[in-house]
Amino acid sequence: MRTLVNGVSTDQISVADRGFMYGDGVFRTLKAVQGRLASWSRHYDKLASDAARLGIPCPDVSVWEGDIRQLMQSEAELQDCVVKLTLTRGIGPRGYAVPAECTPTRVVQLSPLIPPDAALYADGCLVGVSNVVMGSQPQLAGIKHLNRLENVLARTAMAGTGFFDALMLDEHGWVIEGIQTNVLLEMRDGRWLTPDLQRCGVAGITRDLIMQNARAQGVEILVSKVSMTDIHAASHIWLTNSLIGALPVRTLVCDQRTYPYQVKSLPAGWLLEV
Amino acid sequence: MRTLVNGVSTDQISVADRGFMYGDGVFRTLKAVQGRLASWSRHYDKLASDAARLGIPCPDVSVWEGDIRQLMQSEAELQDCVVKLTLTRGIGPRGYAVPAECTPTRVVQLSPLIPPDAALYADGCLVGVSNVVMGSQPQLAGIKHLNRLENVLARTAMAGTGFFDALMLDEHGWVIEGIQTNVLLEMRDGRWLTPDLQRCGVAGITRDLIMQNARAQGVEILVSKVSMTDIHAASHIWLTNSLIGALPVRTLVCDQRTYPYQVKSLPAGWLLEV
Repeated sequence: MRTLVNGVSTDQISVADRGFMYGDGVFRTLKAVQGRLASWSRHYDKLASDAARLGIPCPDVSVWEGDIRQLMQSEAELQDCVVKLTLTRGIGPRGYAVPAECTPTRVVQLSPLIPPDAALYADGCLVGVSNVVMGSQPQLAGIKHLNRLENVLARTAMAGTGFFDALMLDEHGWVIEGIQTNVLLEMRDGRWLTPDLQRCGVAGITRDLIMQNARAQGVEILVSKVSMTDIHAASHIWLTNSLIGALPVRTLVCDQRTYPYQVKSLPAGWLLEV
Repeated sequence: MRTLVNGVSTDQISVADRGFMYGDGVFRTLKAVQGRLASWSRHYDKLASDAARLGIPCPDVSVWEGDIRQLMQSEAELQDCVVKLTLTRGIGPRGYAVPAECTPTRVVQLSPLIPPDAALYADGCLVGVSNVVMGSQPQLAGIKHLNRLENVLARTAMAGTGFFDALMLDEHGWVIEGIQTNVLLEMRDGRWLTPDLQRCGVAGITRDLIMQNARAQGVEILVSKVSMTDIHAASHIWLTNSLIGALPVRTLVCDQRTYPYQVKSLPAGWLLEV
């Protein structure tokens, strides 16, 4: 048993689920190490606030915890695993209109945790620039919702390149994020930057965690527009998400040229939940 | 039996279907009258070409026809009905990357056909302007894909207004479409216009049908940028889609002011498949 849908052991949902019909829902991907969920309360808060922005009521944290515990108990070999949580607006009739009464669908899935090669953290990774331009939609920006075709297109375009990830830019050329990561820059002048996500992109919880820990150590990470000029002027770049933590970039490939970066780890403690 | 998934009578799909995970698929909504599908070959061609733009192989037309026939034979009371076709990239592992081998999921559903009140065609409908700005994404524009959160947001914002539909504008203020319809204008100077959909929106087959029939009668419908000034300068506006055909607009509500339009039917023959 690796999947629960509304607490029941099944991997099936209805074709009338609005998650399937319209991508009308949100999700989270997090890791468990030795049965312990990383940044759990941060993930739950993000799930609930993303859902609230779509007007989807989120089940109480104890409901999700019960599901996760039940799955982990039945899958002893999955104490190190990826936990995926999906919450949709539930089943509804055909049509975009949201039913007056809706019962959200919650899905919890466990899968094996396959961390990136440890050498990538020491040596840094290779990153490209996607030719898929991100559309801007302030009402959806920041939310990890189920409308992810742009990411699918970008990931498809990256196939065969050997890139770990690719930077995605908006229509004005501002760097927003990686296909599956947020981006953090340390500039040669000492500033720290991460792209503003008010108009598109997903605001990951690892990005939040790093900003919070940095601030506690007296380092302000500026949330600002980031241009490719900024990218080229950075001394260090990291890609961040809940599964990889913070992975340093060794080389950026852009317009068939390569740009090297100094590889180093994030300052101590920036990835730790307090 | 009202739903077939890959030809099997069930309304269940896997949570690992990429349609559910990422909205990685396309769909069509068409009507059958007395068991006969309206504009079937046009719908199939659009389904296949939308799927091709996402790199999803579309089953042969005969496969879809077999499914639809099977459902209609088992549901004698649904000879007048709405047929919904959904095609996704199929089941895949977690992650945006498209599997090398993928077996698309096809879903066929029948539901009762509830046409708009006939009086609406004679009297015209009430239309608003959505406050949801459409994001631009040329690589997805025109496609009827499963990433429809913008439509859900717009439809939700319209609840309780009494509007039949609402015009959606892009970030530059160009009118793109209704939430569930395309838009056709006859201007006071005799020109016919419909919004350009190169950057966002869904290119409906009724819009295509009308343009083709108009051209055959010597009337060119210009595909162009349409501003709210154009909307206000139109003598007639119609909303079009596969279920309603062409519905005239009687009143537009914009910034709490109302704008009246002359109500008339489209010229004879413009909605007929030849």
